[in-house]
Amino acid sequence: MCLPWFKTHQASVPEADIRDAEAYEFVEHGETRPFVSESRPLEEVFPYEDGSTIDWLREEAAERERKRAIGMQRGLRGLLALLQDSVGMWLVIILTGLGIGVVGAWLDVLVKWLGDLREGRCTYGFFYNQVACCSGLDPGEVCREWQTWSKYLGIRSIFGQSLLQAAIYIALSIAFAGSSALLVKTYAPYAFHTGIPEIKAILSGYVLDAFLGPWVLLIKALGLALAVASGLSLGKEGPLVHVACCWSYLLSRLLRQFGQNEVRKRKLLAAAAAAGVSVAFGSPLGGVLFGLEELDAFFDDGDVMWRGFVTSVIAAVSLQYVDPFGTSKLVLFQVSESGSTWRAFELVPWIFLSVVGGLLGSLLIKLNTAVAVYRRHSILHDWPIVEVIGFTAITAAISYLVVFLRVQSSELVANLFLECDPSRGDYHGLCNPTATWANIFLLILTALAKIGFTAWTFGMMIPAGIFLPTIAIGACLGRAVGLITQAWYRAYPTAWIFSSCPPDPTVRCISPGFYAVIGASAMLGGVTRMTISLVVILFELTGALSHVLPIMISVMVSKWVADAFGKDGIYSTWIAMRQYPWLPAREFRDKGQTAAHVMKAASNLVVIHDDGQGCTIRELDELIKRHAYHGFPVVYGDQLLGFVLRDKLRACIESLLAEDSNVDRRCTFVPPGRGSGDSSISNLSSLLEEAVLQLRKDVPLELVVNMFQKLNLRHILFSEGGKLTGMVTKTDIVWLLTAQAPHAGALAEKPF
Amino acid sequence: MCLPWFKTHQASVPEADIRDAEAYEFVEHGETRPFVSESRPLEEVFPYEDGSTIDWLREEAAERERKRAIGMQRGLRGLLALLQDSVGMWLVIILTGLGIGVVGAWLDVLVKWLGDLREGRCTYGFFYNQVACCSGLDPGEVCREWQTWSKYLGIRSIFGQSLLQAAIYIALSIAFAGSSALLVKTYAPYAFHTGIPEIKAILSGYVLDAFLGPWVLLIKALGLALAVASGLSLGKEGPLVHVACCWSYLLSRLLRQFGQNEVRKRKLLAAAAAAGVSVAFGSPLGGVLFGLEELDAFFDDGDVMWRGFVTSVIAAVSLQYVDPFGTSKLVLFQVSESGSTWRAFELVPWIFLSVVGGLLGSLLIKLNTAVAVYRRHSILHDWPIVEVIGFTAITAAISYLVVFLRVQSSELVANLFLECDPSRGDYHGLCNPTATWANIFLLILTALAKIGFTAWTFGMMIPAGIFLPTIAIGACLGRAVGLITQAWYRAYPTAWIFSSCPPDPTVRCISPGFYAVIGASAMLGGVTRMTISLVVILFELTGALSHVLPIMISVMVSKWVADAFGKDGIYSTWIAMRQYPWLPAREFRDKGQTAAHVMKAASNLVVIHDDGQGCTIRELDELIKRHAYHGFPVVYGDQLLGFVLRDKLRACIESLLAEDSNVDRRCTFVPPGRGSGDSSISNLSSLLEEAVLQLRKDVPLELVVNMFQKLNLRHILFSEGGKLTGMVTKTDIVWLLTAQAPHAGALAEKPF
Repeated sequence: MCLPWFKTHQASVPEADIRDAEAYEFVEHGETRPFVSESRPLEEVFPYEDGSTIDWLREEAAERERKRAIGMQRGLRGLLALLQDSVGMWLVIILTGLGIGVVGAWLDVLVKWLGDLREGRCTYGFFYNQVACCSGLDPGEVCREWQTWSKYLGIRSIFGQSLLQAAIYIALSIAFAGSSALLVKTYAPYAFHTGIPEIKAILSGYVLDAFLGPWVLLIKALGLALAVASGLSLGKEGPLVHVACCWSYLLSRLLRQFGQNEVRKRKLLAAAAAAGVSVAFGSPLGGVLFGLEELDAFFDDGDVMWRGFVTSVIAAVSLQYVDPFGTSKLVLFQVSESGSTWRAFELVPWIFLSVVGGLLGSLLIKLNTAVAVYRRHSILHDWPIVEVIGFTAITAAISYLVVFLRVQSSELVANLFLECDPSRGDYHGLCNPTATWANIFLLILTALAKIGFTAWTFGMMIPAGIFLPTIAIGACLGRAVGLITQAWYRAYPTAWIFSSCPPDPTVRCISPGFYAVIGASAMLGGVTRMTISLVVILFELTGALSHVLPIMISVMVSKWVADAFGKDGIYSTWIAMRQYPWLPAREFRDKGQTAAHVMKAASNLVVIHDDGQGCTIRELDELIKRHAYHGFPVVYGDQLLGFVLRDKLRACIESLLAEDSNVDRRCTFVPPGRGSGDSSISNLSSLLEEAVLQLRKDVPLELVVNMFQKLNLRHILFSEGGKLTGMVTKTDIVWLLTAQAPHAGALAEKPF
Repeated sequence: MCLPWFKTHQASVPEADIRDAEAYEFVEHGETRPFVSESRPLEEVFPYEDGSTIDWLREEAAERERKRAIGMQRGLRGLLALLQDSVGMWLVIILTGLGIGVVGAWLDVLVKWLGDLREGRCTYGFFYNQVACCSGLDPGEVCREWQTWSKYLGIRSIFGQSLLQAAIYIALSIAFAGSSALLVKTYAPYAFHTGIPEIKAILSGYVLDAFLGPWVLLIKALGLALAVASGLSLGKEGPLVHVACCWSYLLSRLLRQFGQNEVRKRKLLAAAAAAGVSVAFGSPLGGVLFGLEELDAFFDDGDVMWRGFVTSVIAAVSLQYVDPFGTSKLVLFQVSESGSTWRAFELVPWIFLSVVGGLLGSLLIKLNTAVAVYRRHSILHDWPIVEVIGFTAITAAISYLVVFLRVQSSELVANLFLECDPSRGDYHGLCNPTATWANIFLLILTALAKIGFTAWTFGMMIPAGIFLPTIAIGACLGRAVGLITQAWYRAYPTAWIFSSCPPDPTVRCISPGFYAVIGASAMLGGVTRMTISLVVILFELTGALSHVLPIMISVMVSKWVADAFGKDGIYSTWIAMRQYPWLPAREFRDKGQTAAHVMKAASNLVVIHDDGQGCTIRELDELIKRHAYHGFPVVYGDQLLGFVLRDKLRACIESLLAEDSNVDRRCTFVPPGRGSGDSSISNLSSLLEEAVLQLRKDVPLELVVNMFQKLNLRHILFSEGGKLTGMVTKTDIVWLLTAQAPHAGALAEKPF
């Protein structure tokens, strides 16, 4: 008798009832593939469906098989195959790096040109941006080749000029953002947002191939340029990481070795993500560390980190070679090193900034999640393009009024990081010593407006990164605090707190530009909760090596403060909201619970019960059709035999039916020699998973979580004396770790 | 009937016969401790003996218990306990950082003074070093306060002067090195060598508390200063990491929470090691990355990395605050940023340098191991102090003849990294344009001599690091290649290869100082095989941010080349030679083997066989006395019950005997309810390990290795249908991974 136990799907833990337990491990309408050989099932390719979670053990076993097959070829042919394998891998890595560097560089050029187009054009060529148009002038000479639209169109009246400029500025902003949203909505909905939460989930084993397709690559790159140029409060950094991953995924399809193996694919994606950050910030080391810290992508594996390192370097070299802005420097926002020593008393304003950064970072996350949840349940959900156009109109109209909001964020940040220097000019009045308080007011206003804009923008139907807006907010605040400190010093140069400054007050003692860097690092610390990678990115971004200690301290303090209001950074928050099967790497401490706390007991599992006489094909077929779990435990008597994957079982049944359509034919999972030995029964024991982990249900929950985190498992079976007692899947653990996050699962249904 | 199966200790794998299988898991003459409570055995403290390997699962379970106990205290008392726990931890971390910064700074001062003493003294105070003695002079003024010994003693004849100088130089070198060796040999043999291999092993779970004692701290710090000052070819970097770990270990004893838990202790040590590197190189980020990459110390755990980061920052801040050299800079070997662009053609000499660095690095490792093995089996093994004195005499005598060898390595490196600049003076003739070829010859000679010196010195009975000598070797070679390139450019300024240089040959195009940096990074890459941490350390060390790409490329190439001659860096090589139970983090690929390949079959294991009637105490006592394994599997009928640790079992038996000296009393491991229920039989089931991993023996070997690497296990039991089939210990896996290393185990017996 072989009757699958059809039990109600009722978990042993109350919380488990609430959720759609294995939502993303469901398999729907998968294509069927012929089952070729029973003897070496591991070599068969059973592609995963989007939405499932890969089985690392199975993939690594497959990779092992592949390597062994190559290694077993003899003589010259074997050597060549080995060489081809290795060369192919490195070729993809090098091409990934090169491609990302070039894409990053041309995106920069496109964005600069589109952005400048909102204000005017180059008289001698439409396709020159302002800097390129005005290059080749002597210092001090006024650039006449770049003209604002009103001047170019010959408007004389000042009112007409202002009106026309504002109208073109707002209209082009709307046009850019609207077409970006239209492209994304129509051709590649996956291209919206930053992409980093999805990449984190994919790297940890989630399957979402549609997220990495060539259309997504194209639309994300184009849409990103349009979105950034529209002046919305967003950055290109996160989306560039997504673009990099799409690019490497495209390249990986050229090579069979990647196409067949999900783990190899992920290792390549990790390297590509590092290269994406490397290009986004001009920060090759930061890229590697970002991969390590935020993406948790290197799987304890020196080789993968090494490849990420190589890809990062190549991407940075090719970016520097293309040199989009003709500076031949990787450092994007160079700080002035002139006032290169800092004084102990400056730690007071810096720590104040760090605390504020932590608070505002935490606030930004909360606002952003609130907006995302509101958007989901309001009418905006059905009109994403209208939302983008409307919000762009608001942003552009308000931004046009405030000079620091009007310019592109990257230009703003670059100028806020620089010290005032008479030879460099007076950046929009920022360096006007008589307008200090007006500037402080404007900077704080800009920061507050940007917080609002960013909270809304990050999550609209356009590609949008959160790094640059966060830096800009922090830089505005930091510069404001710097100006206040400077003003105070100028008013009371002899106060005891300034005693470490040079006695001559005309010598610079306070460097407000560096306060902006501190503000940016504090804000980033609060929003992303990254630590080391953030510090490295910041000092590769600014070149402020001599000031690395204050940057570190500000990141530290800001993270401490922000952590008091919730442990999750912006990316983890989005992962929890969208409920991707991603396990936070942080240490989990149980409160004395054992695995039994999350385990689904055997009596509630759908189990294939084999008594040695086998089940009929009809029974198995019904089982597969009725239940969408990714696999089933198989039991013989009261002994656990193993675990069979649904895909494998289905393929096998189909191949058996193709041979012989008798649905009453029997098949057994009991290994030959242990079962009845009846030769009329087909033996399916080779379908059973080779490497099934079995634990006892009284192991500490902590250990179970730890094993899922470190070994990247999809499920663990529990047994006692060989008898199945229950099962825990990755879903259960993800739920355990993320359920208490606010708005967990709020955006979980497929939004597209 | 309960008879332990006394089987011959014969492993199933042939290689296993060769080795002393569980040498470092032996437990010898341990003190006995009373067994207090059977009901909560996890809370009992069973300190590990030196030489054993900790059980991470057990330690983490204990930590969980401790946290839970604190969390369960109610009201204000509970809150205070929680606060005290957290404050205590951070206090130790902050004190660790502060202490290491101060110790590092004062070591620098001591070394500088002792080193200068070999050449002369300050006329107005014996305890001033040359720089301090000559401070306060106007630029260009000659320092008359610092006098060489011959001048101070009023020797007139030039021959007499030279003789006296050389004699004092050599005599003081011998005195310093000899007293260092005497101190180490007499008071703290563990203070010899770099200490990093041991720290790697300790962080991965090896127990060697004697290595971290207060005497080791004192002797290592003092001996290190003497050894560095003696002019031997060694550096302070590695030993400083050891000193940092000793210091944090001393602090951790102040707090009960650390003392009781080996895992917590290790997390603190990891942070201290990062701080050690931070201080050694003035490189706070490099310290964190070193912890991550080389020590593999952060256990996938963001919290530990974060603590390492904080400790590193605090150490660097306190070093900068103490400011031993009055430069108020963290950057030790500042490069000139004047020639800050590099040209593509320079990649040719740089890649040549990288290849040479990789080759020489590999050669240095091979020479060093050969010397170490030779030393072990020669008469030198019995006369370590004589060896140190003799080799110091040779080193000092040869060094005195060559100007670049005579100066302290750190001074040499600092000067080699700088560009020639007329205002800075002509460093020992290095900047003399007419002596280019002589300088090139001298530099190469210095490099070769230093390779020989270093290969011998690293492993003598004195504290010795390998970082600085490696940097010095690489810098000499790099500078030589730079000088050659520069000479070539000066000879043929119009050659096509130099077309990217400015047309005016008086403008500097080649920066030999930066070639020295490249040489140093290539050499370090070859010796240590680190990648990212090395790049970060190098550019924090030199401030050469704009040149980070060439540094990365050189590290890459050098590692590739060196890896062709063996995958292990110098530290892994020493670990393999000394056979510490340390698992390399690198990916292991089996050739299709399963766990059965390394598993010791059940028939060869010493198993406690319990049939429910229990064993007598006499039988158990005999078992413990006869076998030194760290624990025994317990079997009931043919079902595996669990695993009992030797220490626990012994403590329990002793406490039972203390109650009642009847050695024929029976005790059983079968849980109450499953066994015979005879109340006269003592139930020991609570002694069984709570979290026993059971696998099937046909899981891939790769997975088993992976689990040991990632979960830090001490053993895995294998079972089939509840029946014990075998066991694999960490030792087996360490042997599997390191057996093929050359000279594996060559220094394995305890050398002290």
